[in-house]
Amino acid sequence: MGLPVPSALATDLYQLTMMAGYEAAGHAATSTFELFVRELPASRRYLMAAGLAQALDYLEGLRFIPDEIAWLRTVPALAAAPVRFFDEVLPAFRFTGDVWAMEEGEIVFAHEPLVRVTAPVMEAQIVETALLAILTFQTSVASKASRVVSAAAGRMVVEFGSRRAHGLGAACLAARAACLAGCAATSNVEAGRLFDLPLTGTMAHSWVMAFDDEIAAFRHYMGLFGEQSTLLIDTYDTVKAAEKIVAAGLRPSAVRLDSGDLGSLSRAVRAILDAGGLPETRILVSGDLDEHRVAALVADHAPIDAFGVGTSISAVSDAPSLGGVYKLVETVHDGQAMPTVKLSSGKHTYPGRKQVWRMGAGIAERDVIGLESDSMREGRPLLSCVMRQGKRLRAASPVMEMAFRARARLGELPVGVTSIDGAEKYPVAISPALDGLARDAVRAHS
Amino acid sequence: MGLPVPSALATDLYQLTMMAGYEAAGHAATSTFELFVRELPASRRYLMAAGLAQALDYLEGLRFIPDEIAWLRTVPALAAAPVRFFDEVLPAFRFTGDVWAMEEGEIVFAHEPLVRVTAPVMEAQIVETALLAILTFQTSVASKASRVVSAAAGRMVVEFGSRRAHGLGAACLAARAACLAGCAATSNVEAGRLFDLPLTGTMAHSWVMAFDDEIAAFRHYMGLFGEQSTLLIDTYDTVKAAEKIVAAGLRPSAVRLDSGDLGSLSRAVRAILDAGGLPETRILVSGDLDEHRVAALVADHAPIDAFGVGTSISAVSDAPSLGGVYKLVETVHDGQAMPTVKLSSGKHTYPGRKQVWRMGAGIAERDVIGLESDSMREGRPLLSCVMRQGKRLRAASPVMEMAFRARARLGELPVGVTSIDGAEKYPVAISPALDGLARDAVRAHS
Repeated sequence: MGLPVPSALATDLYQLTMMAGYEAAGHAATSTFELFVRELPASRRYLMAAGLAQALDYLEGLRFIPDEIAWLRTVPALAAAPVRFFDEVLPAFRFTGDVWAMEEGEIVFAHEPLVRVTAPVMEAQIVETALLAILTFQTSVASKASRVVSAAAGRMVVEFGSRRAHGLGAACLAARAACLAGCAATSNVEAGRLFDLPLTGTMAHSWVMAFDDEIAAFRHYMGLFGEQSTLLIDTYDTVKAAEKIVAAGLRPSAVRLDSGDLGSLSRAVRAILDAGGLPETRILVSGDLDEHRVAALVADHAPIDAFGVGTSISAVSDAPSLGGVYKLVETVHDGQAMPTVKLSSGKHTYPGRKQVWRMGAGIAERDVIGLESDSMREGRPLLSCVMRQGKRLRAASPVMEMAFRARARLGELPVGVTSIDGAEKYPVAISPALDGLARDAVRAHS
Repeated sequence: MGLPVPSALATDLYQLTMMAGYEAAGHAATSTFELFVRELPASRRYLMAAGLAQALDYLEGLRFIPDEIAWLRTVPALAAAPVRFFDEVLPAFRFTGDVWAMEEGEIVFAHEPLVRVTAPVMEAQIVETALLAILTFQTSVASKASRVVSAAAGRMVVEFGSRRAHGLGAACLAARAACLAGCAATSNVEAGRLFDLPLTGTMAHSWVMAFDDEIAAFRHYMGLFGEQSTLLIDTYDTVKAAEKIVAAGLRPSAVRLDSGDLGSLSRAVRAILDAGGLPETRILVSGDLDEHRVAALVADHAPIDAFGVGTSISAVSDAPSLGGVYKLVETVHDGQAMPTVKLSSGKHTYPGRKQVWRMGAGIAERDVIGLESDSMREGRPLLSCVMRQGKRLRAASPVMEMAFRARARLGELPVGVTSIDGAEKYPVAISPALDGLARDAVRAHS
């Protein structure tokens, strides 16, 4: 069970015109593309890779269905395409390439390939738009959520951002990426079902407002859900609500504060609950939280047990896109692999099939981006083969299991890089062989 | 034909626990919720409403299917729900309410309801998460795209942002909202098909890199697509590429510049094309454009015919989320409509069913948010009934037709509000009756 596989039409028009163009030109060279982020957002020191499972689902399921092909015949921009493009190429189309990738939860830096695709040029090209959208979105969410989880310093973070995500598809995938990066649960029910994620939730202000008074609303909820209930106590007056709970003899599992000065209110509420014999009732806070607000509350020793974080994770408020690109790095001419390079101003690329090695024992010291053919005697290679001839080599792991590995991966990086105020720039070097190849390629075009 | 209707599980867990809670409490009061944005992002003076068609699709199609219900029975948080909740309530569930809404393309300000839902509380509540995600995302894209289109001052803007959207679902909806707001076309093929949008596209750098040399790549493309082709000329050296096109006698419809100083490069390329007998070959530019960069190029009289804009529109880079909320404003007790209010610190709401009137002849002067029962003798009411008893009252209009109306709506606002550097704050007043009701409601809780 998974998300519906995206339509093959979920792509840019030029992917289809180029596909027709390659067909017409008889150009079917085996080509290698790499997907990477050119530069980290200013507010990031690292990225956490995510979305590979959905990317491989897409590649395995990519088909042009008859309805779509019939419609494509009517698209003016494709009017010049050869008839066999519609009659033969599209109906038979499958992705048959090889894919190397970073595992989900791996820590990634600028210029390091997240994914490397080798396939006949038509296949390798047409998947560009979808791979970028799938991988960079989840990677940006996981990277943000990882920071929020770090800031919480062991207190629980739960993801509440579905309503502020970029539509319901994004909401579901954001929940997945957030849990991969260490959120303990999500409120998104669909994501809970599809990805086997722990679900959590409280109540809305409207529940409190829908009854004659606040305590009646609380009693009705606890009448059904009992001591598992989390009561939302800021609809009218947070402190008074806490007092009313104690006075009414209610024993909720937790209370939620969603507005006001969360530091001082959490202290006041904690004192009321403790004095009222409710030391085990936990305090969950929410409301426009991000890693900086979470860190400030933690530093202030606010008696908060859990943070509900929404918009800043699901819409990745401070860095809503990554400069992800998918670039041709090698093409085979007459049986000979030819490295390729783009020299556009400010957008140079490195040629050749690459691998990335993480160097250092215990704590990583630096990465080296090299050629696959580099013989590196130490370091952990970060890219492994995940798909061969269009078939994935292993089923996707459960997200909460990958989350465990992701946490370990993050722990291998220096704290100066991974802490939310960390200013340390993690060193990423280019291997001598790759550097030499890049210089040769530039020379060839000058 | 449309997008697949979202699953009923595409929601927050608490919507389902509250639903079970309302069922258990026997609480089925007719309730009215309003969806609005509390505060505009710092970089916006207005919003453009978008996404209503998908919101109504969602409401009409909302069903819990047997597989989903079977799974919900296993969710620990719902273990306490009454058996009839799974056996009867969920299988029979339909949205049967009334919806009033702003039409797509309408200009909206803070606190003005985009949508007002009146239904039995269980139905009105459960749609919160989806309505927010659907409506605020497209509204934020349309609001951004509207600014980019304004900045282009009549030159064409095309939407190229699919790869940087928050997944493929977001990409498709962003393309729709961008065209609603005045983009002339999109590169997203799926959106073109689903929403009958004009499609556009050029070629990727990889096309140029896949052939032995640049001019061979251009010749191959034009061999198929002829003089309709747009050639991408910045892969190696923009100016040299323009010279090569002229020397080779190619006559492309347009060239695209994607990097470097677009002002000076467009001038250099224009001069080469003109001198080479290609005065009709247009210049399209792209590459991290937003309304400010577009406005600067226009102000500089750069000879640019069209702007391809991606990330800043599809990911809404500078304001990736709107503070959209969905609040209970009225509930019926014993046949009597009771206004409701939330008093949380910094998050007060206005009670009662509202209408918004836009005042002024020709150019709008101010809006008044009042009660539906206000008898306003002038002004244009912005909310109209779009769904009654769960059935939409009319089919959605084609997007490109709504775009025409949207442009007219924008033209009714003062230029100081709609220009991209406009600092004018459009006045929005509260009617005396609404103000009085709000004061009464606050008093009732103090």
